[in-house]
Amino acid sequence: MHEVFLDELKRLNTRFMNLGIDVSEQIDEATQAYIDHDKKLAQDLVADDKKFARAALKVEKKTLKLMALQQPVATDFRTVISILEATSDLERIGENSMSIAWETIRVKGNRRIPEVEEVITSMSKKVNFMLDQILKAYVQDDEELARTMAKKDDEVDEEFVKARKIAIEGVQKDPEAAVASASYFMIIRLLERIGDHVVNLAQWVVYKTSGELVDLNSQHHKFDDNIDM
Amino acid sequence: MHEVFLDELKRLNTRFMNLGIDVSEQIDEATQAYIDHDKKLAQDLVADDKKFARAALKVEKKTLKLMALQQPVATDFRTVISILEATSDLERIGENSMSIAWETIRVKGNRRIPEVEEVITSMSKKVNFMLDQILKAYVQDDEELARTMAKKDDEVDEEFVKARKIAIEGVQKDPEAAVASASYFMIIRLLERIGDHVVNLAQWVVYKTSGELVDLNSQHHKFDDNIDM
Repeated sequence: MHEVFLDELKRLNTRFMNLGIDVSEQIDEATQAYIDHDKKLAQDLVADDKKFARAALKVEKKTLKLMALQQPVATDFRTVISILEATSDLERIGENSMSIAWETIRVKGNRRIPEVEEVITSMSKKVNFMLDQILKAYVQDDEELARTMAKKDDEVDEEFVKARKIAIEGVQKDPEAAVASASYFMIIRLLERIGDHVVNLAQWVVYKTSGELVDLNSQHHKFDDNIDM
Repeated sequence: MHEVFLDELKRLNTRFMNLGIDVSEQIDEATQAYIDHDKKLAQDLVADDKKFARAALKVEKKTLKLMALQQPVATDFRTVISILEATSDLERIGENSMSIAWETIRVKGNRRIPEVEEVITSMSKKVNFMLDQILKAYVQDDEELARTMAKKDDEVDEEFVKARKIAIEGVQKDPEAAVASASYFMIIRLLERIGDHVVNLAQWVVYKTSGELVDLNSQHHKFDDNIDM
């Protein structure tokens, strides 16, 4: 019985990791398409717009079935729960990156603000790195790495504030940049949310490893409080 | 054993519903504070900025403990899983409403765009209504009501597009409205995300009632595709 369970769990883990890798690539490509105004690439990315939802649903169904049939305990229980929960974070990250691709298709070649686009590129690189590291931490049960990545989200929040400030100043100087600016606000919010979901993933790595449910999101609203505009 | 389980489940359900009601009230008050520029009320709302995270963590801990100890099956299993999953959606809704309150504290009394604020009020009323109905559907195992509320999210998405269009036009006419406009973009995105989480909650009501894991979010990106600006 336990061997059947471990086989099934291994398959689940593979599905979960594949979803993570797909999602990570999508963030990278979607942001690149956005910065390059590459509508062709963006269209490829959204061609199967429900793929992450579908993949996540499959993992969730299989996880719930496994739980119901095998009633795992102790470490097995924690592993299964962490897959279930982390999958929904991966799905949201995937959906946010889909939204970045959609925004690429929609955005017009109006006046742009290059300084904002630099920050956007940096935010995207950062969340991508964090996600890759979290997936590594997940596989290696590396709680320390997970906590370090969760902390790194503060930098993403700071860049969010910075990008917003530059965008506002840009549009005040040049009202023609209003359309681009609206688009930037959406993109930076999406990237900032991706960062939040990476923090959630870190929490599930900690739970899987130690059994402890923690809140690593303690600085969540700091940036809302300190913004200078 | 089963009686102990049912007692514990009843307590969990009560905690879950209380969280739902608190979150619902917070959306209403935070949006009201934002529209009225009522920084005093907003400060009251964020005074305990982690309260939803804390309440959700408590529900999650108790749910996981119950699962690990009692190994529920069939309907009991589905109920417990749906509490676990729906709690994280309630928490996110709560956090989004916290962000609305923080934005109220931050926003300056600059030039405003009343037409956008009208749409914001309407969006807030709508997601609040949807949330209240979903909580009702949850208690009454009313799958039909849950599906109806999930569909209603399309209206929220439409209002999001409308508000964004008005805000862009407003700032093009009057660059002094750039600060208010940046703030509106954030608020409407938060309200739109709350709508998405209500759709997730609807999915967990369907799962709890029928055992079926469904994706009710099918129109998710429609509004990104059709926007006219």
